Amino acid sequence: MFEKEVAEAVKPTSFLRESDEIASSFSNSLRARFEKMIREAQDSVCSAIEALDGAGKFKEDVWSRPGGGGGISRVLQDGVVFEKAGVNVSVVYGIMPPDAYRAANPTGNGNLAPGPVSFFAAGISSVLHPRNPFAPTMHFNYRYFETDSPKDAPGAPRQWWFGGGTDLTPAYIFEDDVKHFHSIQKSACDKFNPDFYPRFKKWCDDYFYIKHRGERRGLGGIFFDDLNEYDQEMLLSFATECANSVVPSYIPIVERRKDTPFTDRHKAWQQLRRGRYVEFNLVYDRGTTFGLKTGGRIESILVSLPLTARWEYDHEPEQGSEEWKLLDACINPKEWL
Amino acid sequence: MFEKEVAEAVKPTSFLRESDEIASSFSNSLRARFEKMIREAQDSVCSAIEALDGAGKFKEDVWSRPGGGGGISRVLQDGVVFEKAGVNVSVVYGIMPPDAYRAANPTGNGNLAPGPVSFFAAGISSVLHPRNPFAPTMHFNYRYFETDSPKDAPGAPRQWWFGGGTDLTPAYIFEDDVKHFHSIQKSACDKFNPDFYPRFKKWCDDYFYIKHRGERRGLGGIFFDDLNEYDQEMLLSFATECANSVVPSYIPIVERRKDTPFTDRHKAWQQLRRGRYVEFNLVYDRGTTFGLKTGGRIESILVSLPLTARWEYDHEPEQGSEEWKLLDACINPKEWL
Repeated sequence: MFEKEVAEAVKPTSFLRESDEIASSFSNSLRARFEKMIREAQDSVCSAIEALDGAGKFKEDVWSRPGGGGGISRVLQDGVVFEKAGVNVSVVYGIMPPDAYRAANPTGNGNLAPGPVSFFAAGISSVLHPRNPFAPTMHFNYRYFETDSPKDAPGAPRQWWFGGGTDLTPAYIFEDDVKHFHSIQKSACDKFNPDFYPRFKKWCDDYFYIKHRGERRGLGGIFFDDLNEYDQEMLLSFATECANSVVPSYIPIVERRKDTPFTDRHKAWQQLRRGRYVEFNLVYDRGTTFGLKTGGRIESILVSLPLTARWEYDHEPEQGSEEWKLLDACINPKEWL
Repeated sequence: MFEKEVAEAVKPTSFLRESDEIASSFSNSLRARFEKMIREAQDSVCSAIEALDGAGKFKEDVWSRPGGGGGISRVLQDGVVFEKAGVNVSVVYGIMPPDAYRAANPTGNGNLAPGPVSFFAAGISSVLHPRNPFAPTMHFNYRYFETDSPKDAPGAPRQWWFGGGTDLTPAYIFEDDVKHFHSIQKSACDKFNPDFYPRFKKWCDDYFYIKHRGERRGLGGIFFDDLNEYDQEMLLSFATECANSVVPSYIPIVERRKDTPFTDRHKAWQQLRRGRYVEFNLVYDRGTTFGLKTGGRIESILVSLPLTARWEYDHEPEQGSEEWKLLDACINPKEWL
């Protein structure tokens, strides 16, 4: 369990523990560079959202934990274009159960059997829900994870890994939009490794699966987790490139769709799909369920939920309708490029 | 995992397996009598709801599973008084993991270590969501459970237990309403055992707890589970009495509140509380999470979710307001009688 967070009036330069900062290599440490990256990404995404919205402004909450770590939550609610937009960064120090350590290190020494392991995690996480049912919801999250050596095995290596992804959840399919989104994700991937896009696209389709519905929550993008089999510097650059790809992959789509006329039927369908979004996040999403169980900052965790959602009994879109086409693509994921 | 259910055009007299029905004591078996009781309760609750609504009608879906068991789902949606009302009965044959068997039999022979155990479960489950924010949501569920002897321990005793409860979830407190509701629950309990109401009232407050919020989803009622330390006949009568108390404890309240004028603020607060309802059901409710994981009939399980719900970032009602009073009673459960 985490300690209870406290509100901060002033934004610190870094949420790292002093022991991290004092380390001679501080300014070059991956922890410090990752925190800097996600805070810059938070600024640039929020600026782009506010510029597009025209009226809505982000409300900022800064918080910290007594033992180290903290975060900045930014939420824009009831804007002109965006119904609810959350962009959070956090830096977390915690204790990980032995099972989780082993899971993160499947090729490690099986005889190790360590006790609880201290970990460090920093990440940016965001969900953007526009009002217009033709403008898609988008989510992205990039995080960096490190464990300390287990206390009873001081010689054991530290573990580290990267995780994250960016994915699109429309209520209606505009092929141009989906192709645009996926092509920018692919470009970001291709700069680093030609295997990344196909691998992380499939991973995304597999991860955002609402098992009890037999459908995905949306039309995917890229997703990866526990990534440590590449060079650490390369993966930092890759995560940075992905974070920088959020605005160009998404903002032009909302720009195009934000004023499209719509009917009550379109709105009701968007609301039903938001119900599915809630189902995925509360039942399956690792970050959400982990955060709820370990005492993370609830309002930051649940800012991913839409402002409003809807559940109709046994709703089935008419075969061949635009609603049916979206559902079909959520059930049978497509190659968009 | 359950087999996939199939739709039935005709409602069978019983969903019990033929092997159950052929048993000489069929018409007197607890399985048969419990099924009859919940089907009668379904009829009487649905009639009362339709009469109160005046316009909305229940849509009925009958389903069965090839290996035995089935159910009747009834849903009224978009009525005049009720936004969404679901009343389901089901009869289920399944296989239970050994852990669950032991948990249900904590005083049993610890050396038994049985393999998977066949079980039988029958239940009625209902959630009623009115439109008017001053008319409360109500939930009730009564179920009967039996296990067969484990295959590798044919001499071991069958287990059985009863579970259920009835609880009220208003968005605003009218003390008269809450007292009326609890007093009818207490009367039902007191007919059987003076310990029942205090014990099951507390159990209800403990069960409907949204841990990550530190609050209950509503103002409680009664709840019990794994109940087998009383006479079986007495518990069948008690469950019947509880099911028969649903209409008198709830319908007069909705009758009184259904036409109360309300503002957008009242409606928004109701919607926020419905968001909490969704959080409880998807994250904590045993029946829901068990059903989603084992392949139960999804539309029947999720009919408990409200038609619409809302999540605002960091919403805190003004201290002393009517909204605050409700939240306070959800955080600090009260004795209403």
